[in-house]
Amino acid sequence: MNTQDTSPPTPLGEIEFWFEFGSNYSYLSVMRIEEAAALRGVRVAWKPFLLGPIFKSFGWDTSPFVLQKEKGIYMWKDMERQCRKYDLPWTRPSTFPRASVRPMKIAAAFSDQAWIGLFCKRVMLLNFALDRDIDSPEAVAEALEGVGPAPAEIVAEAQSEENRHLLRAQTEQARARGIFGAPTFFANGEMFWGNDRLDDALELAAQSLSA
Amino acid sequence: MNTQDTSPPTPLGEIEFWFEFGSNYSYLSVMRIEEAAALRGVRVAWKPFLLGPIFKSFGWDTSPFVLQKEKGIYMWKDMERQCRKYDLPWTRPSTFPRASVRPMKIAAAFSDQAWIGLFCKRVMLLNFALDRDIDSPEAVAEALEGVGPAPAEIVAEAQSEENRHLLRAQTEQARARGIFGAPTFFANGEMFWGNDRLDDALELAAQSLSA
Repeated sequence: MNTQDTSPPTPLGEIEFWFEFGSNYSYLSVMRIEEAAALRGVRVAWKPFLLGPIFKSFGWDTSPFVLQKEKGIYMWKDMERQCRKYDLPWTRPSTFPRASVRPMKIAAAFSDQAWIGLFCKRVMLLNFALDRDIDSPEAVAEALEGVGPAPAEIVAEAQSEENRHLLRAQTEQARARGIFGAPTFFANGEMFWGNDRLDDALELAAQSLSA
Repeated sequence: MNTQDTSPPTPLGEIEFWFEFGSNYSYLSVMRIEEAAALRGVRVAWKPFLLGPIFKSFGWDTSPFVLQKEKGIYMWKDMERQCRKYDLPWTRPSTFPRASVRPMKIAAAFSDQAWIGLFCKRVMLLNFALDRDIDSPEAVAEALEGVGPAPAEIVAEAQSEENRHLLRAQTEQARARGIFGAPTFFANGEMFWGNDRLDDALELAAQSLSA
């Protein structure tokens, strides 16, 4: 258990999935987590949060992939290979990292809906396969088309007073739990960082089911 | 291919293994690379280099796991789990990162010897399983015991005028090739970073054999 984490442990058979639509390695996990979790009988708790304020708390004004040139060059090459490996479409975004508050607020407000996975996949594909500005009303409308009832109502509800501070509160919770990047997973009270650890986290969540 | 890399591509069927005895994730790769490479018919080119000067070039005076507290806390937990996964002994070193110039100079001077893998494994076990000061003459002598002929001669030759600048030159080469952490692998001209990418790098090296 993370020593900074005072939250109750993740419920049995559940994986918490902390992600950001602007994060390239979150793209890999968003695309594959639902199927991988379902195959193991594990439930996914979707936890959108903003990386910007986390990076700011470290004194960084943008992504470490921008701040650290060598790591950034490598990351783009790695993404190409990882997408080939997982059989995912890939276009290097012309803007990185992309602003994502508008779709993130929707994900935060509707994280318990059956269509959350489909919506998140669509937003990620817009960013990392189609190189679109995911923070525009048009892109959000496109991602919502046909996923659930009444896209306009979803957009309005995400902007309501009730949901206004949800994303900020969830980002603060991420920081308090020691999250320093995305994607991050919690299974059985343990933290796992990076798409490379998704399978290990799912294994632990599935074990907790049969324990 | 890394855009900063002007070196000739790695020969067919070979993997370049860039590592540091003070690096915890290098420990995982040092312990498993020989067997994993042999199973695929791939030859390992051992490339010791110092992380300190690389980190200094980024403006850091120590490991990012020390500079970034949250990442450091996570890393120790991750190492515990990774060692369990690979069935490796593990003790969190009481000093981190450990100075390693003395054994690193030996690795640089004798990287083409048949006993290089065994020597490197012994140094890594001293650091990450036995919590010993690997930069001491005693630890180095212990790591050399019985691996090759005449440990005293090996120590003397590593300190000779001829080998004096080898480690520094190799570190400079690492920087010039865009290496920003350890372990790093090159296969078929492509760079791979981190123990999590060792298998992908080996796959590519093995493919280049049959191509």
